Amino acid sequence: MPSDRVVVIGAGPAGLEAARLAAELGNPVTLIEKMGVAGGMPIHSDYAALTHHFRSASEAMGEMVAAVTSNDLVDMRVGTEVASVEGELGNFSVTLTSNGSEESITAGAIILATGFKHFDPGRETQQYQYYELPDVITIAEAEKMLKDENFVTPSTGKPPERVAFIQCVGSRDRQIGNEYCSKVCCGISSKQAIEIREMVPEARVFIFYIDMRMYGYWENEIYWPAQEQHKVNYVKGIITEILPKNGRLVVRGEDTTMGRPMEVPMDMVILAVGMEPSAGTTAMSSVLNLPTNKYGFIETAHDILDTVTTTVPGIFATGAAVGPADLDDSISSAGAAAAKAVALLRSAAVPV
Amino acid sequence: MPSDRVVVIGAGPAGLEAARLAAELGNPVTLIEKMGVAGGMPIHSDYAALTHHFRSASEAMGEMVAAVTSNDLVDMRVGTEVASVEGELGNFSVTLTSNGSEESITAGAIILATGFKHFDPGRETQQYQYYELPDVITIAEAEKMLKDENFVTPSTGKPPERVAFIQCVGSRDRQIGNEYCSKVCCGISSKQAIEIREMVPEARVFIFYIDMRMYGYWENEIYWPAQEQHKVNYVKGIITEILPKNGRLVVRGEDTTMGRPMEVPMDMVILAVGMEPSAGTTAMSSVLNLPTNKYGFIETAHDILDTVTTTVPGIFATGAAVGPADLDDSISSAGAAAAKAVALLRSAAVPV
Repeated sequence: MPSDRVVVIGAGPAGLEAARLAAELGNPVTLIEKMGVAGGMPIHSDYAALTHHFRSASEAMGEMVAAVTSNDLVDMRVGTEVASVEGELGNFSVTLTSNGSEESITAGAIILATGFKHFDPGRETQQYQYYELPDVITIAEAEKMLKDENFVTPSTGKPPERVAFIQCVGSRDRQIGNEYCSKVCCGISSKQAIEIREMVPEARVFIFYIDMRMYGYWENEIYWPAQEQHKVNYVKGIITEILPKNGRLVVRGEDTTMGRPMEVPMDMVILAVGMEPSAGTTAMSSVLNLPTNKYGFIETAHDILDTVTTTVPGIFATGAAVGPADLDDSISSAGAAAAKAVALLRSAAVPV
Repeated sequence: MPSDRVVVIGAGPAGLEAARLAAELGNPVTLIEKMGVAGGMPIHSDYAALTHHFRSASEAMGEMVAAVTSNDLVDMRVGTEVASVEGELGNFSVTLTSNGSEESITAGAIILATGFKHFDPGRETQQYQYYELPDVITIAEAEKMLKDENFVTPSTGKPPERVAFIQCVGSRDRQIGNEYCSKVCCGISSKQAIEIREMVPEARVFIFYIDMRMYGYWENEIYWPAQEQHKVNYVKGIITEILPKNGRLVVRGEDTTMGRPMEVPMDMVILAVGMEPSAGTTAMSSVLNLPTNKYGFIETAHDILDTVTTTVPGIFATGAAVGPADLDDSISSAGAAAAKAVALLRSAAVPV
């Protein structure tokens, strides 16, 4: 008799949604999270507000966690890792480790929701001197400052007068091997630009970009308001270096619309870092024997009309584990993964 | 006793996927399609290949239709319209009309998948003279020509030497009231540009754009190959008018990167028309009493962490009925809609 249990690995937005829906469809679920608390990147990276809708990240994620913990069919295990997986669709044996103790559970299907990590801008893009200059930060760090309602220039502790965002750091970059676009950085930067303008109204905010990828409703929900109501300055241009000068930063590059070199002073520079596969995604691709694409994200079936089915029967992947994803993508694909996992177990349980 | 039947309205990609999954989760499904055959826009608009992956549209949609018709739990009704809906979650009474005859069925939940229509570029953007100039066509018409493997200049019947795409026709356009970005037009145009270069290797192909929104993997799967392997020319610029001249077309505008006016001869111009709510989406919003946003797309719950729940309990919406969507979006959200509809009916069937 095959097991009808679904093991979900990762308790970020996608994992929480997949776990909740699989349980609401009637299947027992074990939700595994290696961190001590659930919530994923919005919680562990201290996001202020979610892009789009500017909803409090901790409030939104709190609701998702509550929906899972209040469901008797979900057994959530935080501080727990997946050490190994044996078996096959209908009868996987999943070995968990937690605080040095080990346990095996049987599952019919597995949903991988191990997400992404932020690109490390000091690693391969030294031109921005992220490791050297304290006033060069990332959108993840800006998010924390916005959440703390203390948006100041790190080196002085004073509110900045001029702030620049640089888009596509670690994305659309062939030299470092990340040719893909990370989807969300334009939206997050524009959201943060609005929040900075609200928190520090005297600050001027610039966004240097290649293409503004404010797709769908982001265009009217964020991009127009950022420009019109909040006077955020968008400059199509390529930034080649950031230099310290007289206690400020100088951003050097080319304004491609004006067709001329530019050199502008800033108090802070925020790097819009893209997505890379998380350590969990990399580790689980190996444990589960799942092929990855050349960037290290999980491969889904080579069929455009399926976003969650992996090459291993009974194993699904959702959210940013399969590539750059916004929250709508993650929530939708988590629903699809739950539906497909439960449907597959239902058919596996019926003798043909 | 509430009904466990799910009525899905619209048999395009999202509707077919939602119907199949709801049935695979064990619920009886009635799938309603007003056209004589299922398949939605890829079939009724004669798409050649799907963006991305260049997969044959008729083959891919054929598989989706077969998956539904081979499932005994799905009752597919083509040539059928929804005339009225009464009742509530668990007990909707849905009146169908087909060839003048009328029938009522009972359903527990409803999934709306009525999709989009292509923006009509002759309606409000007269500067492109779509109604007047035979060699100005839309990406939907280009798709048909590519499918027929007969890509020629309409007025001469000869292969074109110079082809221009104009992006954002009917999208990102405040004057006509469509401020949103339609998401897919950059990808579809780039895909078609590659196909044209393969079919008519001597043709030069230009894409005039504001921002190239080749998000996620489209960047490395379509945008880089289009430029490097297929020598498609991307020009950041604004096209203000198209004029006939000496039997050809002259495209006039401004090259914003070079900062100068341009006037270039073309044999054909392809307008990358965006998405608007389909007639079915508009009609069903009224029949089902579903609020729409100011563009006429269906409103989902004002909660970013739910992509498919409408304001009416028991009614879900998926795919382009809720706004611009690519195929991945539609397929993922269809899975989420099926999961949520079935989960809701499951909880409604259990006495509290």
